[in-house]
Amino acid sequence: MTERRPGSALYPTPMREGMMGKCVVVFQSSIKSVEVEAGTTLMDAAHLAGVEIPFPCGGQGRCGGCKVRVEHGSVDQPNTAYLSPEEVKEGYVQACQATVAGDAVIFVPPKARVERAVSDERTRVEIELPFQGDWQGKPTIRKVLLHLPPPSLADQTGDVERVKRELAARHGIEDVTLGLSLLRKLSRSLRQADWRVTAVVDLAPGGLGDHASPRLIDVLPGDCTETSLGVAVDIGTTTNVVYLVDLLSGEVIDAATAYNGQVPCGEDIISRIIYSEKRKGGLQHLQSLVVETINSLLVELSHRNDIDLQDIYRMTVAGNEVMIHLFLAVSPASIRYEPYIPTMMHPIPVRAKETGIKINPQATIDCLPGVGAYVGGDITAGVLSSGTFAADRLTAFIDIGTNGEIVLGNSDWLIGCACSAGPAFEGFGVQDGMLATVGAIEEAWINARTLELTYSTIGNAPPRGMCGSGLIALLGELFVTGVIDRGGRINLNLNTPRVRVGDHGPEYVVAWGHETESGKDIVITEVDISNLMRAKAAIRAGITVLARSVGIELSDVEQVLIGGAFGKHINVDKAIQIGLLPDMPRDRFKFLGNTAILGAYAALVSGDMRRMVQRIAEKMTYVELSADNTFFDEFNAALFLPHTNMSEYPSVMRLLAQQGTGVV
Amino acid sequence: MTERRPGSALYPTPMREGMMGKCVVVFQSSIKSVEVEAGTTLMDAAHLAGVEIPFPCGGQGRCGGCKVRVEHGSVDQPNTAYLSPEEVKEGYVQACQATVAGDAVIFVPPKARVERAVSDERTRVEIELPFQGDWQGKPTIRKVLLHLPPPSLADQTGDVERVKRELAARHGIEDVTLGLSLLRKLSRSLRQADWRVTAVVDLAPGGLGDHASPRLIDVLPGDCTETSLGVAVDIGTTTNVVYLVDLLSGEVIDAATAYNGQVPCGEDIISRIIYSEKRKGGLQHLQSLVVETINSLLVELSHRNDIDLQDIYRMTVAGNEVMIHLFLAVSPASIRYEPYIPTMMHPIPVRAKETGIKINPQATIDCLPGVGAYVGGDITAGVLSSGTFAADRLTAFIDIGTNGEIVLGNSDWLIGCACSAGPAFEGFGVQDGMLATVGAIEEAWINARTLELTYSTIGNAPPRGMCGSGLIALLGELFVTGVIDRGGRINLNLNTPRVRVGDHGPEYVVAWGHETESGKDIVITEVDISNLMRAKAAIRAGITVLARSVGIELSDVEQVLIGGAFGKHINVDKAIQIGLLPDMPRDRFKFLGNTAILGAYAALVSGDMRRMVQRIAEKMTYVELSADNTFFDEFNAALFLPHTNMSEYPSVMRLLAQQGTGVV
Repeated sequence: MTERRPGSALYPTPMREGMMGKCVVVFQSSIKSVEVEAGTTLMDAAHLAGVEIPFPCGGQGRCGGCKVRVEHGSVDQPNTAYLSPEEVKEGYVQACQATVAGDAVIFVPPKARVERAVSDERTRVEIELPFQGDWQGKPTIRKVLLHLPPPSLADQTGDVERVKRELAARHGIEDVTLGLSLLRKLSRSLRQADWRVTAVVDLAPGGLGDHASPRLIDVLPGDCTETSLGVAVDIGTTTNVVYLVDLLSGEVIDAATAYNGQVPCGEDIISRIIYSEKRKGGLQHLQSLVVETINSLLVELSHRNDIDLQDIYRMTVAGNEVMIHLFLAVSPASIRYEPYIPTMMHPIPVRAKETGIKINPQATIDCLPGVGAYVGGDITAGVLSSGTFAADRLTAFIDIGTNGEIVLGNSDWLIGCACSAGPAFEGFGVQDGMLATVGAIEEAWINARTLELTYSTIGNAPPRGMCGSGLIALLGELFVTGVIDRGGRINLNLNTPRVRVGDHGPEYVVAWGHETESGKDIVITEVDISNLMRAKAAIRAGITVLARSVGIELSDVEQVLIGGAFGKHINVDKAIQIGLLPDMPRDRFKFLGNTAILGAYAALVSGDMRRMVQRIAEKMTYVELSADNTFFDEFNAALFLPHTNMSEYPSVMRLLAQQGTGVV
Repeated sequence: MTERRPGSALYPTPMREGMMGKCVVVFQSSIKSVEVEAGTTLMDAAHLAGVEIPFPCGGQGRCGGCKVRVEHGSVDQPNTAYLSPEEVKEGYVQACQATVAGDAVIFVPPKARVERAVSDERTRVEIELPFQGDWQGKPTIRKVLLHLPPPSLADQTGDVERVKRELAARHGIEDVTLGLSLLRKLSRSLRQADWRVTAVVDLAPGGLGDHASPRLIDVLPGDCTETSLGVAVDIGTTTNVVYLVDLLSGEVIDAATAYNGQVPCGEDIISRIIYSEKRKGGLQHLQSLVVETINSLLVELSHRNDIDLQDIYRMTVAGNEVMIHLFLAVSPASIRYEPYIPTMMHPIPVRAKETGIKINPQATIDCLPGVGAYVGGDITAGVLSSGTFAADRLTAFIDIGTNGEIVLGNSDWLIGCACSAGPAFEGFGVQDGMLATVGAIEEAWINARTLELTYSTIGNAPPRGMCGSGLIALLGELFVTGVIDRGGRINLNLNTPRVRVGDHGPEYVVAWGHETESGKDIVITEVDISNLMRAKAAIRAGITVLARSVGIELSDVEQVLIGGAFGKHINVDKAIQIGLLPDMPRDRFKFLGNTAILGAYAALVSGDMRRMVQRIAEKMTYVELSADNTFFDEFNAALFLPHTNMSEYPSVMRLLAQQGTGVV
């Protein structure tokens, strides 16, 4: 790969005579080229050429994250605030804004390319769910061994009818249906197996509003009833998680996590929607990216656990409305415009073959239902797995992801809202952020006197970066030790080598190069801190506004259940110190980890739980924060550490007074 | 097109050195060529080259119907009784048996190519069905005009949920489901139509055993409720019929008929099964042929009636088990071997897009259920449309097609069987036979003294050939006037120019060239007569054996209802004279025309009637004639005119005595 440094001489740029006609665009980083019409954006040209460039804002021209350098040729760049005079001089353009005017050679900087973090260790997940009773062991997939009486002149019933008769008479499964592909192989399958087969039946193939009969998905030779596999999937805006589940025991055999392959097309859901609208084929491209991500996780799971993906007969998906629309290649465009309407809140079940997901093509993929444009199936799943739906006390459920969603209620009523937090707590948009996998710094302490830091990592491995829980801890420590002020600015006058000015401005060194896996320093920058503060402010403002909308004082909330992809081990004190959470008795808080995947898991292994998610979706009232004038004021008030109104954080005030760092 | 007469000199036939390797085969008739491995049959080579050769026995090597001439090159032909020494000398081979041994040039005689008879006039069909009451006007397709309230911040429900809410609240249609393709276009469709749309709902998308919810098939802009179209289809072994139906009024707008495009691959169902088994891709080829036939009829109907095939939202199909298996590309192989088991007797409903039928891709195609390997949905449809299922008198229902099926019973019980009659009564396998369309001779009378003939044709057009009713009349007349004897042999000693020896042996001239459309004589040959006699003998034997199996005397049968593609206007006397039907009082017989398409029509326009077909299929007992030793004896006894046992035909004996032609 040819790598060129900024500042290298530009090739001469000959102009073609006319502005119209075909232009050849060569992308240097990957030696790919494409012929496009003059006037095409470099974004579209890159897509056609199969070159990956990240578009954090979805191609709106509002972030400068897609800078590329014109090495040669003719490219028009409109005026923009996102390029410095030096960058303009060096030939940098915004790929989403710049248009081709003639043949051109384009250099894509390596930093602009996207790395995907994939966990490579087997992860057995111990499931703890706050439910009582007999809900497990009733998955919607049943495998049944059939010893069929062979046909004779005295018993000439058809093959399908023979199987149906046996399923009804001996197993109480009535009126099964089946599809053409199974019909086409049934006769041969039965005869080759000498009439001893395992029937794979999906008891709820048509979703819950539908009354569809059980569906015969497959007929396997001999006895294959010993295992029965399904997958639960969380399609987060930033992070995708897959649980491989033994449907018979309910055990999670393994789990795999990766960043959503769509991230380069926009870091939040609005940017993704814009990408899907703005770019030709954008919707299909986004679908294929998330399908590829899930497929790569499935392949990882199949290799690690020596299973055949064809043996997976059911998949349950939790995701926000935009993620589900994109996964099904249904345009989410109308979600973006007032009055913010999704095509569907209760997604239809589809067959795997309709999506490209590489499990058994006849498997039902069931996306959990949502409540409104910005409160989706990930939240109903969380309300299920957190037990909020069954709580007898007034409960706040908070899901901290790229969107922050907040639900208030108990077993009688539920109300929910969403606010755009951004992906900072998932380690994205933070220079050394990462997923909560091996090597992630998940806890940190700073000595108030020396300003030296100690940390722990997941798996006790050499640090590779910081995950959400580590970032929360670090932000809290930086604040209470006075390394940063209430506005998040780093104090450059401190007497420690850890505070310095780096390539991206002021930063604090979290781990020195000799400690880390890569050999490079792990730092947190002022820009990272600013991103984290915006994320926490959005969630904190949402909590206040939602509670106010139903006339509840925060102090009335009896428990706060918190979900999110940052892992279970969050330090509550730190989360309060930075003002992410309100200042309440610590024992009211409970961190539950990824509640979306837990809810998808519960709905996968239990028909009862699947029905419960449906009831949760029907019961919950959706509050549109964008229709609430007070949200923006609350957001601005929460943009300080811990909050503009310090009187809301008496425990933090006491601590700061004890520390004596003079922050307040 | 190069046409070469038999007897022309052969090209030299150079042998290649080895027998293995690639060989180029050129088919002269159509200037098509293909490269195949040595050892490939000419049948397979022709298929690969896209050259149509008829295989009346399905490629078993048992009929000689697929003779082609090797003009040049190296082809191996096993010993056979189906080629005369002259034909062998001239280079003729059986395409299904002969294998390629080197490059070759093959001449396909024009007679071997298949002509398809397509009616080209609009046919408004008046439907008469023997039902009482309110069964019409309840089709499973409903079109509903929706004035949806546009979404607002106060009403943020999703698009799908908005449509479902309106359908349930205002039209009583609860819990509709929909597919991905509609989901993907719904948002745009609703907004472009400004929330005023026509919802197309299939109330029974999942078949009857299934409890599937109604399915939203389409959403059309504005008010499209004025028309609602469906099609009823009869897939006969020889003849395919399509009715275009206005589902609102129940009117049959138009009908179209053609020979099944599969006929060149075998003239009866056993030959078709063999073809599907024997030839690589044979099953898929047979499916595509019947789908093409139906599509060509649909295109014909759409042109004549200026309709868009996309507006057809439901198709109901009647056909025997083998035809339905082939239509769905499900192998019928096991039907051929004892104990004769179909993959399914109750076919699953499929979407049009799964079959290649060019109506709306989301339309449900519903194939009516059958009873056993040889009593299919065409017969349950006929038992419905004939009223047999509701009869209070003991009724025989006989469907005369390529298979003859017989049902005995009344409103309490039903028993059915099948016998292979062959396609003679559909005009196939008879030199000048044709479908019951314009120009077909449908009635004929012979002057016993002069042996001159008068006839009438459908539409009073110049004769083009003879349809089933004409053939029955003609056979009866030839017999009672002494032109043929009881064994079907033509008396060559008669003093009339109409009796002569033609290219295919003795024949009787039905119409002279100056009367006919083509200018050629229309004749009936001794071979034709033999085919017709085998057909009538099979049906007659079936009637006897079935009645005996339930201990019924034929004279106890109070009405005989007869269906078949030969048209309604059959002369009962003639059908008795030839021994097709038993000798009973004439007023007990009723000819109903194509009862299969009438039943498909009834099930299309009425959910009640669709359920009734299901009940008929469940109620009927299937009798396997091949398991009955007496059938073959009865068949042989019926191979005479009218029957070996003349005492069973007293009315015919009286007539012959009156005629004084000395036949008896």
